Amino acid sequence: MQICLIGAGNLASQLAPALASKGHRFLQVFSRTENSAQKLASELRCEPVIRPELIRADADLYICALKDDALPPVLSQIRFGKGLVVHTAGSLPMSILMEYTPNHGVFYPLQSFSKQRQVDFSEVPFFIEAASPESLELLRNLASCLSEKVVPANSEQRKQLHLSAVFANNFVNYLYSIAEDLVNEKGLDFKYLLPLINETARKVQTLTPVQAQTGPAVRFDRAVMDSHLELLKDHPDWKVLYEKMSAGIHERAKSK
Amino acid sequence: MQICLIGAGNLASQLAPALASKGHRFLQVFSRTENSAQKLASELRCEPVIRPELIRADADLYICALKDDALPPVLSQIRFGKGLVVHTAGSLPMSILMEYTPNHGVFYPLQSFSKQRQVDFSEVPFFIEAASPESLELLRNLASCLSEKVVPANSEQRKQLHLSAVFANNFVNYLYSIAEDLVNEKGLDFKYLLPLINETARKVQTLTPVQAQTGPAVRFDRAVMDSHLELLKDHPDWKVLYEKMSAGIHERAKSK
Repeated sequence: MQICLIGAGNLASQLAPALASKGHRFLQVFSRTENSAQKLASELRCEPVIRPELIRADADLYICALKDDALPPVLSQIRFGKGLVVHTAGSLPMSILMEYTPNHGVFYPLQSFSKQRQVDFSEVPFFIEAASPESLELLRNLASCLSEKVVPANSEQRKQLHLSAVFANNFVNYLYSIAEDLVNEKGLDFKYLLPLINETARKVQTLTPVQAQTGPAVRFDRAVMDSHLELLKDHPDWKVLYEKMSAGIHERAKSK
Repeated sequence: MQICLIGAGNLASQLAPALASKGHRFLQVFSRTENSAQKLASELRCEPVIRPELIRADADLYICALKDDALPPVLSQIRFGKGLVVHTAGSLPMSILMEYTPNHGVFYPLQSFSKQRQVDFSEVPFFIEAASPESLELLRNLASCLSEKVVPANSEQRKQLHLSAVFANNFVNYLYSIAEDLVNEKGLDFKYLLPLINETARKVQTLTPVQAQTGPAVRFDRAVMDSHLELLKDHPDWKVLYEKMSAGIHERAKSK
C-alpha cells in the first residue's frame, strides 16, 4: 500500500513507522511545521511536504492524523484521487470527510499517545469505519497487520469510546496529579503511590470495576470521610470531587 | 518473632502468610467470625481464637488488622503483656493505642487488598511509626523482610497517604466503572479500554502526572467538551464530574 500521511503529531509519528515496519510504503508526510515534516519523512524515507496543495493524488491511502480543528482547512486544499481518505479521530464523525471524497473512512486506535513513550500497537484496539465494504476490508487488513483487536464501529460508538477514554485516561491521570500534590504537601514522594496505581489498573484486568471497588465510600463510612474532607479544607475543588465521587461509589455499591 | 494476629480480613489473610513464609511464628489468630479465624489459623498452623479475652499475653508482637471501628471494642478486652501492639490502618493515629499499652506502633502497608488477588509485598511500601526507637527498629526489621521500601512516617503523614490512596485507587476505580457503563451503553465491551487503562498507569511510572496529562481539557477545547457534555445529558452526576475535572486539568496545564 502507498500511503500519504497528513500530520506529524504524536499519533502520526508512532503509527506511520509501525505501518512502515510491516511493509507499507509512505510517499509523503505533510505537516505545516517544516521541522516535524522533515523529521518524520526522513524516518519513513519519503518526501516531506509543508503545503497541502503539493500532496499527491495517486496514493492508495491518505491517513489524516491532525488535530480536530485543523482537519477541514487542510483537507479543503488537497486534490484527492481515487485513494481512500481516513481520519484517526475519536470524536469526529466519518461524514465530515464526505465533502472531500466519496471514498472515505475512519481508522481509530484507542490509546494515549505521547512523544516520550513508545506504544506497543499489538495491544491497541483499532476501531474502523468506511463508506464502502471494500474500504472497510482494506482498513481491516491494514489494522490487522498491527493488532489482533480490529473492531468495526460506527461514528456514534466511536464518539462514546472517546468520551469513555476521557474518563479512563485523562480524568484518571488528573486524580494521580491530585494524589501527587497531597503526598507532596506532607513531604512524601509520589513514587510511594506507584505500586497502588499499578495494582488498581491490574485489578480491572480480571475483576469488573464494581467488584474491584474498595474504600470508605463503599460503606459510606462517615467518620473516615469527614476526616478526609477536613484534610481537604484548603482545596475546595478537590472537596467537591471527593463528595461527588464518594456518593457515586456508594450508589453503585448499593445497587450491586 | 512470636506474633498474635488480631483480625482475619483481606489484609490480615495476606500479610500473615507472607510473614510466616519469612520464618515468623504465629501463636494465635483472632476473629469474631469463627470460620475466618479457623481458616487462617489452619494456614498459619496456630490456634484460632474467637473471644478477645483468650488472646495470650506473652507474644512479642500483636498485629491488629481490624476495621477502624472494630478496633477499640476488641482491644479493650485484651490483656496485653510486654509485647509491641501495632495497628495497620492508614486513617487512625498511633495514639489510639496508648490507652491499651505503652508499647505501641503502626505498621501500614500502602496497597489495595482484596480476597481475590494475591499481593506481591516486595513492591509494597510499608510506613512505620512507634512509641520508642527500639520498637521502630523492630518494625523496620519486620517490614524489611517483605519489602525494600520501609519508611518511617508520622500519623499526620499516614493519614494524608490514606487520603491520597482514596484518590489514586478508590476514585480511579470509580472512573473505570463510569467508563465501563459508557461503552456498555453503546454495545461495546469494557475490555477495549484495558490497554488504555494500563498505559495510563504505566505513563506515570516515568513521567509526572502533569507531564502525562492529555485530552481536550488541557487546551480547554470547547467544541469537543460540549459534545461530550451532550452525550452525558442523561447522567447529571457524571456531567458535574466532567466539568469539575476538566476545569481542574485546564488550571493545572496553565500553571505548568
